[in-house]
Amino acid sequence: MNEFFMKKLLKLLTILCVIACCISVPKVEARVRRYKWEVKYEFKSPDCYRKLAITINGRSPGPSIIAQRGDTIIIELKNSLLTENTAIHWHGIRQIGTPWMDGTEGVTQCPILPGDTFEYKFVVDRPGTYLYHAHYGMQREAGLYGSIRVLLPESESEPFSYDYDRSIILNDWYHNSTYEQSAGLSSIPFAWSVLIQGRGKFNCTTPGLPTGLCNASNPECAPYALKVVPGKTYRLRIGSLTALSALSFEIEGHNMTVVEADGHYVDPFVVKNLFIYSGETYSVLIVANQDPSRNYWASAKVVSRPSTTPNGLAILNYYPNHPRRNPSTNPPIGPHWDDVRSRLSQSQSIKARPGFIHTPPQRSDRVIVMLNTQNNVSGYRRWSVNNVSFNLPHTPYLIAYKYNMLHAFDQQQPPEGYDSATYDIYRVQENANATISNAAYRLKLNTTVDIILQNSNTMNRNNSETHPWHLHGHDFWVLGYGEGKFDRVNDSSKFNLVDPIMKNTVAVQPFGWTALRFEANNPGVWAFHCHIESHFFMGMGVVFEEGVEQVGELPTSIMGCGDTKRYFKP
Amino acid sequence: MNEFFMKKLLKLLTILCVIACCISVPKVEARVRRYKWEVKYEFKSPDCYRKLAITINGRSPGPSIIAQRGDTIIIELKNSLLTENTAIHWHGIRQIGTPWMDGTEGVTQCPILPGDTFEYKFVVDRPGTYLYHAHYGMQREAGLYGSIRVLLPESESEPFSYDYDRSIILNDWYHNSTYEQSAGLSSIPFAWSVLIQGRGKFNCTTPGLPTGLCNASNPECAPYALKVVPGKTYRLRIGSLTALSALSFEIEGHNMTVVEADGHYVDPFVVKNLFIYSGETYSVLIVANQDPSRNYWASAKVVSRPSTTPNGLAILNYYPNHPRRNPSTNPPIGPHWDDVRSRLSQSQSIKARPGFIHTPPQRSDRVIVMLNTQNNVSGYRRWSVNNVSFNLPHTPYLIAYKYNMLHAFDQQQPPEGYDSATYDIYRVQENANATISNAAYRLKLNTTVDIILQNSNTMNRNNSETHPWHLHGHDFWVLGYGEGKFDRVNDSSKFNLVDPIMKNTVAVQPFGWTALRFEANNPGVWAFHCHIESHFFMGMGVVFEEGVEQVGELPTSIMGCGDTKRYFKP
Repeated sequence: MNEFFMKKLLKLLTILCVIACCISVPKVEARVRRYKWEVKYEFKSPDCYRKLAITINGRSPGPSIIAQRGDTIIIELKNSLLTENTAIHWHGIRQIGTPWMDGTEGVTQCPILPGDTFEYKFVVDRPGTYLYHAHYGMQREAGLYGSIRVLLPESESEPFSYDYDRSIILNDWYHNSTYEQSAGLSSIPFAWSVLIQGRGKFNCTTPGLPTGLCNASNPECAPYALKVVPGKTYRLRIGSLTALSALSFEIEGHNMTVVEADGHYVDPFVVKNLFIYSGETYSVLIVANQDPSRNYWASAKVVSRPSTTPNGLAILNYYPNHPRRNPSTNPPIGPHWDDVRSRLSQSQSIKARPGFIHTPPQRSDRVIVMLNTQNNVSGYRRWSVNNVSFNLPHTPYLIAYKYNMLHAFDQQQPPEGYDSATYDIYRVQENANATISNAAYRLKLNTTVDIILQNSNTMNRNNSETHPWHLHGHDFWVLGYGEGKFDRVNDSSKFNLVDPIMKNTVAVQPFGWTALRFEANNPGVWAFHCHIESHFFMGMGVVFEEGVEQVGELPTSIMGCGDTKRYFKP
Repeated sequence: MNEFFMKKLLKLLTILCVIACCISVPKVEARVRRYKWEVKYEFKSPDCYRKLAITINGRSPGPSIIAQRGDTIIIELKNSLLTENTAIHWHGIRQIGTPWMDGTEGVTQCPILPGDTFEYKFVVDRPGTYLYHAHYGMQREAGLYGSIRVLLPESESEPFSYDYDRSIILNDWYHNSTYEQSAGLSSIPFAWSVLIQGRGKFNCTTPGLPTGLCNASNPECAPYALKVVPGKTYRLRIGSLTALSALSFEIEGHNMTVVEADGHYVDPFVVKNLFIYSGETYSVLIVANQDPSRNYWASAKVVSRPSTTPNGLAILNYYPNHPRRNPSTNPPIGPHWDDVRSRLSQSQSIKARPGFIHTPPQRSDRVIVMLNTQNNVSGYRRWSVNNVSFNLPHTPYLIAYKYNMLHAFDQQQPPEGYDSATYDIYRVQENANATISNAAYRLKLNTTVDIILQNSNTMNRNNSETHPWHLHGHDFWVLGYGEGKFDRVNDSSKFNLVDPIMKNTVAVQPFGWTALRFEANNPGVWAFHCHIESHFFMGMGVVFEEGVEQVGELPTSIMGCGDTKRYFKP
């Protein structure tokens, strides 16, 4: 081969390469990302106290999913628990076209049996900060959770700038097992901690602890250290998956600029502390612009209920200080636990970012008012919506609707509201008519639905709790918040129909209300429930069916329970 | 109506009654007995230490099943566990014609999911003493067990006489959960007790116990009191469901006459102490012929392994002494833990009762020698049979065979033996070829099969354990026991082919062998395994298929797992 020919060939190859690269760009943008996860019990000491935790590949929190918009995520989930089933929900991912992949046991799938491998496969269609966690029994509290970060394609950029991107999850952590929690806890000391990114610090000198289970110097419970380079700007993605607690998160000496909530851009505002409820995610920008010769405390404090549990602590570690060097300052103590006004005020500050506003429909087709109450039903303490305390059927709704097995659950529609004219939300109420039911709301496809979440007094005098409600399969517009009883005429007229934020999780404050609007445009069956795991478990949730006739063929991997085994044909 | 007519009418009615009674006798003899059971977790303190236990209708041990020969038992089992499946095995009931009701998860059924109600329905076709217990994961150890007593019809009588009939179950009880047990226990103190009829006594002053969990005066852990009337004879039905321990049971000052073993009459013999292995049942006669002014200790001692665990204690309560009045004497200390000869000698004493001998076939069609070893396989400590460590497939064998889903498990036949000429059973062996497999033995229907269980050294020097092997769906003849390596020529020639006892569970002693014979005459798929729950869990078992083509239509209630959900057709 002569030199000329060689040069020609090289040139040709170069051209071919360039063409190939150009052609392959879209392929890079929408990749398939495969994960192999094994779920099992392992002993962990996230707050220095040794306890069995449910782990993914040995970790709790589990591995982070980091993907780009449009990617297909495939998770081969092997259930290596001994006798327990499982299911994992991809919190904030709407599962458009794949309602059977929502991971909600009893709603969208049968549980995954021990020894089985289940393949979750779905598209992450929108950039933002999301979570995943068990959606079965109370396994989320046993440690089965993690974070999902969906990035923009490399060719696009966010409407704010930062140097580095980091994620943390806030959580609370109980020393009794979820079995013990669900069996009742009357006389066992209720010991727990607040965790930041899976690490907390229980006081190992607490009297009455069993010998050998608490070890303050266990490296597993060294505070999480978030390393920052002085002068740089960090996008910190914060999610909360607390079992019970509302939290206030802050970093000593550093303001935070809120830029994202639940996958939607926020009209930026600055806070000293961020209130965050279970199921919510936020991105905040922080600038490492303080004295670089030391580290700083990050602190998560329990709010909305009185608590003696110490704040969860982490370290903002200014490079090159040692990440284990505790600041000599006192950690932030945080706001007062019952400062409802500040919490409400922060919620009201969250608006859609100009230029990224999804204007809501200006009117809705249906309004469902949901009175949240605590009740005694058949001798059990329960939570209810309009006096209906929810429980899951044995045949998942999605399968039952799709195959017309309507005997699988109650067929009457749950109530659209309550007697708001006479009901006193400030009093302990008997609610003697409360019943347990698995009835579901059927929504007309492509209609607009308003939900008014109305809080009320619990079964204790002068007490009302904060409930973060999470909607599967959709985002909703947050039209407004208020104190006291929702007034259909006056409060509706004050709805923000201009630039409301869209979210998938929102809090309803003690004795307050929260108004949401969403479009029932995602064929499937979707849970909507309080994200406090024990509250959902005790009935605080509903289910929406919409356009199930448009749902594609269900994978048989979601079958196996209830009526779906009676139809076995080999 | 005159007097004469009245008398006539009365006479007629009397005759009709007598006829009716006569006609109804067969109906009384074969009744349907229905049970409604709810399985759930509850806090229990069987040995004074509070722990979550799996209960049936709030009890552990669960309710006793008491029936007559030929009765049909129907148990509606509601699984009210939160995230755990379950399955219950009817230990000693052969399930002739109903192999799908054996309750062996992975072999005869899919597990019963939380919230589901499963109907077990089977005939108890033979009088005797049997057990029931969870056969899923390690749930048996969590408290899910009870006793079955099958009586003769009233028109028949036992070949021995007694005044009263009583049942007790012996067990061991661990303070860690089955989750913790299966996840490994390296550094948690391994605290446990021996229970008699669900009651034991842990030492609440043990250092390092958590505060508030151990209460020595809790009535739940008062010793079980067996009330006896002086001079009367008692049939005491004793079953063992220990997780690990071989036991010696005795009653201070009272001999016991062994009359039944695993549902077969024993040529009576008298013992001071009864050795009993997990999965075995015995009936013994005791006469309340001692000083009636006091109570007596009953004691269950751990044998076959060194143990510092105190004997389990109960009280033989001579009426009218108070049942809580502890004897002032010291409880029996029991035999030395490593007195293998005495244990072997007792086993060899157990022969079929003359007049009730089922003569075994004088030769067998197939001999399978099963070398029991401890191995490291893929980094895990396992137990193996002929270097195959068993694990359960995801599709139960019975369904897979019946519907020809043979891809559901390994299709090669497991080995018929081991290299007995060269293998040294007294040495720690590498067994580097050991594999994990779910392959099954296929037996020709109506053939006679011999099993030689050969024990060997564990992975610790000079150590061999006792393994009680249990066969589902059959009884077997116990042809002989021996020390050392089984000699095919000499030992076979000494088999007892005259009056061997039939049993469903038999022990193989350290460094010893046990020879069994059974007829493969019950179409189905049947587990045969070490009854130490953790040993089965770690691979010490096999499965036999026989005549599955003759098995009737399987109920769809046993479906739902593995491949049985891929064939869902609504």
